[in-house]
Amino acid sequence: MRQLVLLRHGQSTWNRENRFTGWTDVDLSEQGHREAERAAEQLRRHHLAPSICYTSYLRRAIRTLWIVQEQCDWMWLPTRAHWRLNERHYGALQGLNKAEAARDVGEAQVHLWRRSFDVAPPPLPDGDTRLPDQEARYRAIGKEAMPRAESLKDTIARTLPYWEEAIAPALRAGQTPLVVAHGNSLRGLVKYLDGIADDAIVDLEIPTGQPLVYELDDALHPLRHYYLRDLEDA
Amino acid sequence: MRQLVLLRHGQSTWNRENRFTGWTDVDLSEQGHREAERAAEQLRRHHLAPSICYTSYLRRAIRTLWIVQEQCDWMWLPTRAHWRLNERHYGALQGLNKAEAARDVGEAQVHLWRRSFDVAPPPLPDGDTRLPDQEARYRAIGKEAMPRAESLKDTIARTLPYWEEAIAPALRAGQTPLVVAHGNSLRGLVKYLDGIADDAIVDLEIPTGQPLVYELDDALHPLRHYYLRDLEDA
Repeated sequence: MRQLVLLRHGQSTWNRENRFTGWTDVDLSEQGHREAERAAEQLRRHHLAPSICYTSYLRRAIRTLWIVQEQCDWMWLPTRAHWRLNERHYGALQGLNKAEAARDVGEAQVHLWRRSFDVAPPPLPDGDTRLPDQEARYRAIGKEAMPRAESLKDTIARTLPYWEEAIAPALRAGQTPLVVAHGNSLRGLVKYLDGIADDAIVDLEIPTGQPLVYELDDALHPLRHYYLRDLEDA
Repeated sequence: MRQLVLLRHGQSTWNRENRFTGWTDVDLSEQGHREAERAAEQLRRHHLAPSICYTSYLRRAIRTLWIVQEQCDWMWLPTRAHWRLNERHYGALQGLNKAEAARDVGEAQVHLWRRSFDVAPPPLPDGDTRLPDQEARYRAIGKEAMPRAESLKDTIARTLPYWEEAIAPALRAGQTPLVVAHGNSLRGLVKYLDGIADDAIVDLEIPTGQPLVYELDDALHPLRHYYLRDLEDA
């Protein structure tokens, strides 16, 4: 039996301010810190023992992982960061308050961007300082692969190659991966593992800071999955 | 011209208490935190741009690296931890206060353990809870390679294979490595790079928290090296 642990980062400062975040590199809020600490406590209490960690290029996921690694004495564990585990790129919406966006373009449009499977928000225009290729960390991706806005479908399509090239091989080699990432990149993994339909995955909410454990057979088909959570949360 | 940055971790709680630390996994002291922050500030001010980070399995080195990564916005950089970069294993001395050890066995004996090239302190006996193979992180090393006490010579001998198998290939591939490690594992790298004699390396003090930059030619021979430090430190 093989084990995989997924963890969505704790609340960020922009979650708190109700702003579209995407690839904007904001940090955890105080509440996000506490969520990460509680996730660590649950992983320890349930004797989970990851042997390798994966995370995105974004600080709110890395910070969540660091808090877990610190609390669980796993700072030494091999750790790989990759842009393919990043949050969905929210294009020109990044930085906007969600309520303001709804006032500007209408509730229906915002709902479409947030809850459809294959509608992307307006892309970042040429020269926009929010373009990710302005940053050293994304220079290696290449201009074609670099998103300027993504639908959930786009996000999943660029997340899954990392499952194939890194996480699945680690599982096959007997490793227990801990993947600390984002609502939409994790949706991609869950959709793939559980064969969830396009119109169902948009409504699947993975809660922040609650470790989601998958048990997989040797062909990496899921046998079962469950959240580690306190009895009082149930 | 290739660039390599070496950094010795900041003061640990046991440095402060004047205890033999070795592989004991103590954290940075408050002063150690500040030293790491200053190292980050210097790296940033001098526009150093590492592309890959290496550190040991020990928390005081990883913490120093994390502080640098956080302050410099390098949390996403590829990072590799390895036991071969650990501090010298101090055997049965680990945990003892240096002054008490001198009272017990004499100044001369302690000086010999601390300042000779090839004299190891007494090894940890079978069953000692300080044996590193008690811990998950060291299980993969194997019983023969697992140190129970090391001379400086032993430390250097197990550090250099990591230079050969990881750091040197990265340099050849055009990477700029940042290596955050310990007094004695860094002595090993410096001895190798600069061809320092056995009896001279024991007296070479690499200061904590001061980035040491090597510029190397294509054959990885050092052209020059220098510490990044504030003018007021000189």
